[in-house]
Amino acid sequence: MAGSVYGRHFVISTWGESHGDTVGVVVDGVPAGLSLCEEDIQIQLDKRKPGQSEFTTARNEADRVRIMSGVFEGVTTGTPIAMMVENGDHHSADYSNIKDIYRPGHADFTFDKKFGIRDYRGGGRSSGRETLGRVAAGAIALKILGELGISVEAYACAIGCIEVSKENFDIKEKYNNPLCMPDKEAAGKAQEYVKGLMEKGDSAGGIIECVIKGLKSGVGEPVFDKLDACLAKAVFSIGAVKGFEIGAGFKAASMSGSENNDGFTAENGEIRKTTNNSGGVLGGMSDGSDIVFRAAVKPTPSISCTQKTVTKGGEETDINIRGRHDPLIVPRAVVVVESMAAVTLVDLLFEDMKSTMDHVRELYVRDNKQR
Amino acid sequence: MAGSVYGRHFVISTWGESHGDTVGVVVDGVPAGLSLCEEDIQIQLDKRKPGQSEFTTARNEADRVRIMSGVFEGVTTGTPIAMMVENGDHHSADYSNIKDIYRPGHADFTFDKKFGIRDYRGGGRSSGRETLGRVAAGAIALKILGELGISVEAYACAIGCIEVSKENFDIKEKYNNPLCMPDKEAAGKAQEYVKGLMEKGDSAGGIIECVIKGLKSGVGEPVFDKLDACLAKAVFSIGAVKGFEIGAGFKAASMSGSENNDGFTAENGEIRKTTNNSGGVLGGMSDGSDIVFRAAVKPTPSISCTQKTVTKGGEETDINIRGRHDPLIVPRAVVVVESMAAVTLVDLLFEDMKSTMDHVRELYVRDNKQR
Amino acid sequence: MAGSVYGRHFVISTWGESHGDTVGVVVDGVPAGLSLCEEDIQIQLDKRKPGQSEFTTARNEADRVRIMSGVFEGVTTGTPIAMMVENGDHHSADYSNIKDIYRPGHADFTFDKKFGIRDYRGGGRSSGRETLGRVAAGAIALKILGELGISVEAYACAIGCIEVSKENFDIKEKYNNPLCMPDKEAAGKAQEYVKGLMEKGDSAGGIIECVIKGLKSGVGEPVFDKLDACLAKAVFSIGAVKGFEIGAGFKAASMSGSENNDGFTAENGEIRKTTNNSGGVLGGMSDGSDIVFRAAVKPTPSISCTQKTVTKGGEETDINIRGRHDPLIVPRAVVVVESMAAVTLVDLLFEDMKSTMDHVRELYVRDNKQR
Amino acid sequence: MAGSVYGRHFVISTWGESHGDTVGVVVDGVPAGLSLCEEDIQIQLDKRKPGQSEFTTARNEADRVRIMSGVFEGVTTGTPIAMMVENGDHHSADYSNIKDIYRPGHADFTFDKKFGIRDYRGGGRSSGRETLGRVAAGAIALKILGELGISVEAYACAIGCIEVSKENFDIKEKYNNPLCMPDKEAAGKAQEYVKGLMEKGDSAGGIIECVIKGLKSGVGEPVFDKLDACLAKAVFSIGAVKGFEIGAGFKAASMSGSENNDGFTAENGEIRKTTNNSGGVLGGMSDGSDIVFRAAVKPTPSISCTQKTVTKGGEETDINIRGRHDPLIVPRAVVVVESMAAVTLVDLLFEDMKSTMDHVRELYVRDNKQR
Repeated sequence: MAGSVYGRHFVISTWGESHGDTVGVVVDGVPAGLSLCEEDIQIQLDKRKPGQSEFTTARNEADRVRIMSGVFEGVTTGTPIAMMVENGDHHSADYSNIKDIYRPGHADFTFDKKFGIRDYRGGGRSSGRETLGRVAAGAIALKILGELGISVEAYACAIGCIEVSKENFDIKEKYNNPLCMPDKEAAGKAQEYVKGLMEKGDSAGGIIECVIKGLKSGVGEPVFDKLDACLAKAVFSIGAVKGFEIGAGFKAASMSGSENNDGFTAENGEIRKTTNNSGGVLGGMSDGSDIVFRAAVKPTPSISCTQKTVTKGGEETDINIRGRHDPLIVPRAVVVVESMAAVTLVDLLFEDMKSTMDHVRELYVRDNKQR
Repeated sequence: MAGSVYGRHFVISTWGESHGDTVGVVVDGVPAGLSLCEEDIQIQLDKRKPGQSEFTTARNEADRVRIMSGVFEGVTTGTPIAMMVENGDHHSADYSNIKDIYRPGHADFTFDKKFGIRDYRGGGRSSGRETLGRVAAGAIALKILGELGISVEAYACAIGCIEVSKENFDIKEKYNNPLCMPDKEAAGKAQEYVKGLMEKGDSAGGIIECVIKGLKSGVGEPVFDKLDACLAKAVFSIGAVKGFEIGAGFKAASMSGSENNDGFTAENGEIRKTTNNSGGVLGGMSDGSDIVFRAAVKPTPSISCTQKTVTKGGEETDINIRGRHDPLIVPRAVVVVESMAAVTLVDLLFEDMKSTMDHVRELYVRDNKQR
Repeated sequence: MAGSVYGRHFVISTWGESHGDTVGVVVDGVPAGLSLCEEDIQIQLDKRKPGQSEFTTARNEADRVRIMSGVFEGVTTGTPIAMMVENGDHHSADYSNIKDIYRPGHADFTFDKKFGIRDYRGGGRSSGRETLGRVAAGAIALKILGELGISVEAYACAIGCIEVSKENFDIKEKYNNPLCMPDKEAAGKAQEYVKGLMEKGDSAGGIIECVIKGLKSGVGEPVFDKLDACLAKAVFSIGAVKGFEIGAGFKAASMSGSENNDGFTAENGEIRKTTNNSGGVLGGMSDGSDIVFRAAVKPTPSISCTQKTVTKGGEETDINIRGRHDPLIVPRAVVVVESMAAVTLVDLLFEDMKSTMDHVRELYVRDNKQR
Repeated sequence: MAGSVYGRHFVISTWGESHGDTVGVVVDGVPAGLSLCEEDIQIQLDKRKPGQSEFTTARNEADRVRIMSGVFEGVTTGTPIAMMVENGDHHSADYSNIKDIYRPGHADFTFDKKFGIRDYRGGGRSSGRETLGRVAAGAIALKILGELGISVEAYACAIGCIEVSKENFDIKEKYNNPLCMPDKEAAGKAQEYVKGLMEKGDSAGGIIECVIKGLKSGVGEPVFDKLDACLAKAVFSIGAVKGFEIGAGFKAASMSGSENNDGFTAENGEIRKTTNNSGGVLGGMSDGSDIVFRAAVKPTPSISCTQKTVTKGGEETDINIRGRHDPLIVPRAVVVVESMAAVTLVDLLFEDMKSTMDHVRELYVRDNKQR
C-alpha cells in the first residue's frame, strides 16, 4: 500500500496535512460489539494536545474528534470507523517564507525530490498533526486491549542526558510534570535543561520507554512478522524516532550469553522467566513477561537560531524558523508511541487467533451453535 | 500474511526447518530481463556458510542452491523464482535430549505456547538456517540494485565492548579476519575476547553496521512505510537482533537540535547535506546521503555452561547445551543484514516508481511505442 | 484487510452507513501532479444520484463531495486524498418497522449472524450509499486513465429480457433515456417492462456491459492477479451483481476451439486480433483489443408486494417494504461498474510498471537526472 | 503482490513452468495440529493427472508430490508447508517450432508484450501445470474444511451445449465417466460431441458447477471482500475461465424481485431460506444455504487444425499445433475449481474469526488458561 495504510487485520488508513481541511483515519477490522463513544477517542487526543505547558507549541488546537461511521447506538458494528478532526487554527502565513527553502532536519527536501510538489504549510503531511489519526485509531486498539486485560504505558525515560533512575521511578509521577517523566528529581533537572536550550532558540530530544503488561505467550509470528520487528516498524514510523531497542537492547551486544540469557523457573507448574533481558519476546513471540522497549527521539528540527541551508533553486542561504514549535516533542510523542504499539498488538493478536486447529475448531463449533 | 511472506512488490516467501527436508524461498515480483544463474546465489549463500573459522559452528553444510523456476536461458522471465537447498548433514540425535526442555534465550518455550507443537530438532523454524531463504532472495535483490548503481555493505562494528575505531577503519580489512571487522586492531582484540568466552563455554554478541551507497532521494514513503521504519522491521526480523538505529541513532536523543540538524549546501546547483546525522533519511524518504544503520545482535543463546531452566512439564532442571553452535553469530549475520536491507530497498524502489504522474505518463507513453 | 480496503497500489478505504453521519473514502497511492478539484468528483457522483427519473428512489440526496486532504493548489501531492459526503436526508423512521425483521434478498440476516448487531436504518453498510466512496475514488482513477488515453464506458445492455441489439446500438443514446441503454427502441420497451413491474410493487434486474478502450498489451498479472480475475472481483463486490463474464463469456463454453480462438493478423508489423472472443484478455493480460465484460444485476430486493419472512426471533411473518426504493438499480449501478473497473485498472497498471528490468532501469536513470 | 501469491491469512505462493525444473507451492498460515501426509496431497493431484482417458493429454506425468517443510511427525507445526513436484516427462522439442509464433487463444503474445521474454516450452508459466501448486494447497484447505464439516464438490454441468439435467442428476455418476458429469445420459452424449470435434482436430469447452455444503452463516466480508467476489476472483484466475455466476446468476437479470427473492422460514427457531436463488450468499456473506456457483470454461486453444496467426516479427503465417493436448480441459479443471474455492473459504473463515468482540474475548480468555 502506498504508505498511509497500516495493518493487516486491524487496518488503519490515515489522511491529512497540517494546514489542510481535516485530518483523520478510517479503521477497518474493529470487531463488532465494542462499546465506543467520541469521549473514548477524545481522552487520548487530548494527551497529544499542544499548549499544555511552556514546552509545547502554543498552537491552539481544539481538536474535537467526530466519529463518522461504524458505531450504532454506542456500540461498534464491525464496519469501518472513520474519525476526523477539523483543522481550525491556521496560521499559514507563518510558513510562506519557507515555501522555497529547505529547513534542515525536515522532510521539505525529500518531499520535493519524491513528489515534485509539497504542501509547505506547517510541514504538510510530515507535520506532527499526522499523528492525530494514529492516536484516534490507537484509542480503539487500547480499548480492545483493555477488555482483554492488556495495558500499554509509555513515558519519557530520558530527556537529553538526564535519565530516570531506577530508585526514583514512580509511574504516578509521570502525570505530575509536563515532561511525562516518572521520576520527580529527573523531571526537575530535565526542565532546567530544556529551558536552557529554549533560551538559545534550540531544542531537545529524549528517549521514550513503553511497557506492555498482561500479554500472554505466543503473540507475534516467527520469521518476518516477529512481535519486536512489528513494534520496531510501528514506532520507527513515528517522525523523529531514530532508534528502537527491546529488553537489554544495544547493551545485549556487549553481554555474554550466560549474562544475557533469561533463565526459566516454575511455580506450581506455571513457567516464567527469572529475568527479562529479552524484553518479553523470544523468537519473535511474546514470552509472558512484560514487553519493554525504548525509542530514541531526536531533538525537534524546528529551531529559531540561525542555520545554514539552501533554497529550492540551489542557492545557499540562512534560515531562522519562526512560528509555533515544540522545543521538545517527547511528551506529546508518548501517547503516539502507546497508540502505535496498541494498533500493532491488536493486529498480531488477531493473526494469532488462527494459529492452531484447536482454535479454529473451537470457534467454528461455537459458531455452529450460536449462528 | 502468516509471517513467512515479506514484501509487497518484491515478495519473498520462505520455508524450512533446520533438520527438515529442505529450506528455500519463492521470490515473486522479480522483473524480467535480469541475467541470473545459480552461482549468483551461491556466492551469497557461501558468506553465511558455517565452519569457515573456529568462531562458527562445525556443522558441515554444503548448501548448494538449486533454482527451480523463473529463469530461462540465463535470464529472469518475470515469473516466480523458487530456490532451495537440501538439508544434508543432520545430527538430529544431538537434539533429542532437549525435546522436553526449554533452552534459555531460545524460542522453544514460545513455539510450544503458540503452536502446541514444535520441531525441536536444531531449533526447527527458529534456526539460523531459516535465513538461507532470505540470503538467496537477497542475492537477487542485490543484483537488481547493482544494475542501478546501488551498493549495500555491512560489517561488524563492535564485538562485545570492542569497537571499530574511525581512525583504523578499512573496509578491505573486513575480508581479512573471521569476524568481518573492518579494523585490524579491533579484530585482533575481539578474537581474544571471543576465545576467552569460548573457553568458558560462553558466547558473545556485537553490533553490525550497514552502509547503502548510490540511493537517490525520495525512496521510502512518508507516514507508515518510511524507509527507516521498513529497514527497522527487516533487520529486527532477523533472529537475535535486539536494537536498531539509524544515523546518530540513540545519540540523537541527547543532542540539541542545532547539533543534530544536518545543514544543506549546494554546489553547481546540486544540493547535499553537510553532515549525516539523519543517516540518509529525512521524513522517511532517502535524502541522497549514504544510508547508515546499526543493529545490535545478542550473544548466541546456545552455550555449553550450565543453566537453570524448566521442562515442558514445569519441573526445574539444569541444562548443558551440546551440539555444534556458533559462539558468535555476528560474522554470519552480516550477509543476512545486507540481504534484508536489499530486499527492502527493492520493494520501496518499486513503490516509488508510481509516485508522480510524470513517472506514470512517461512509462505508459514509452510502452505505447514498444508494446 | 477487513473488507473495506481495496487495492494494493491505488488503495481505497471506504466508510459509512446509509443513515450514519457521513460516507466517504480515503485514496492512498494517487501519484503527485494530477490536477484535481471537487467538481471532477462531483460529476461522477451525480451520475449515481437518485431521483433523476421515475425509475429511481425519490430520496433527495444533494451529495456534495468535500475533498479533505491530498490536494494543494489544485494539484495532487502524492498523499492520501480523503473525500466525504454528509448524510443529509434521513428518514430513519421509515426503517424502524424492519428493525427486527429480515427482508428477503437483503443482508439483514447475514449481518446479524456475522456481527450480532446491525445498523438497520436504510440497510446500513449494505446500502447502495456505500458505493459513494467507490465512485469518488473511481473519479480519480478515471482521471488518471484519461491522461493515459484509456477510456472506460459502461451501459445497460439488457433490462429484464429486453436486450440492446447490435443493429440499433448507439452509445449516444445511453444519455437520452433514464435506463442508460444505448438503443432507443430497446430502451422504450424496457421502460414499459419496468413500469409494469412497478405497478405491482415489483422490481427488475438487468445486465451492464463495460468497454475499456486504449489499454496497451501486458496489463494484468499471470496466475492469480489476472486482469479478468481482478475485474471479476471488483465488479462482483458491487451489491446485487450475480454474474460476470468477459468476451464470449458463458457462450464460449459451447463453442469449439476453432470458433472461439481469435486469429492474429499484422499490418505494418503491428499485430492485432481479427476477432475479440477473448474480451481483450489472454492469459490474464490485456491483449491490445478492447476489454469487454458484462455483469448480471439482480432485481432490487426491496419490493412493496407482500413477502413471507421471519423475525429476528425466528417467528414467521409477512412483510411489505415501504420507503423510497429503486425499482431498478441498473442505471445507477452503471457508474459504479465504471468506477470499480477504473480503480482496478490503475492498480494493475502500477503493478505492471515494474515488470521488466528495462522499465526499472529507465526510470531510475531518468530519476538520476531529475532528482 | 506480484501475481503468484494469493490469500491473506492462508497464503499460497506458487512457482513453476511447464518444462522448467519443478512446480510447487509454499502455503503459509496453515494452523498447527492438522494431521497431514503426502498421500493427502497426492490423492488430489492425481485427480488432475493427465492421460486418464482419451479426452486428456497423453503427457505422462507421475507427479509425485514431496512435502519439504512444515510437517513434523505427521502433524503440521504452524510453519510454512512447501510442496513440489519434479517436472519429468519433457518433450521440449515439441515446442521449438512455436518459439517465434503466437498461438491463437494462448498467452504467447501477451507474455512477450509484458515481459519481453517468454519460456515458450509447453506454455511456460501459463501452462496447466501451473495449477499443480493450487491443487496441492487446495488439498490442505480441503482437509481443514473437512475437519469443520464443510465439503466442496465440483463437476461438469455442461460440455458444449449438452447440459446435465435436473432429473438425471446423480453425483455418484461423476466418478463413472471421464467427463466428470453427474448424469449418465448427458455424459454419453457429451463424449460423442467431443469425439466428433477431436476427429477434426478441434476442441470443446463446458461449464463447471461447484457446491459447498456445511458452511455457517456470516463467512465473507461486506463491501470488497464479499464471499462471492472472492470466489469469482479465485475461479477466474484459473486459465480458460471466461464467466462466473452464483445462484440464479445471469438468469437473475431477467427475473422480477418477487421471483428472485428467497423467502425466509423458521422451524424450531432455526431460520432458513425457502429457495436458493442467492446461491448461498447475501450481502457478500454466507447465508447458511449451500453455496452454488458455476464457471464457464472456454474450449482448449491448442487445436491441430490449421489457424491463421503471426510470427513474433509480425509476419502472417499458418499454424498447426502438434504435441499432446487436452481436447477438453473441463474434467481436469474440476479439482482446480474445488481447490481454489477451498483456499478462498479457509482464508475468509480465518478472517471471520475476529469479527466480534465475543470471539476475541473468548479465545483470549481460553488462551489465558491454556498457555
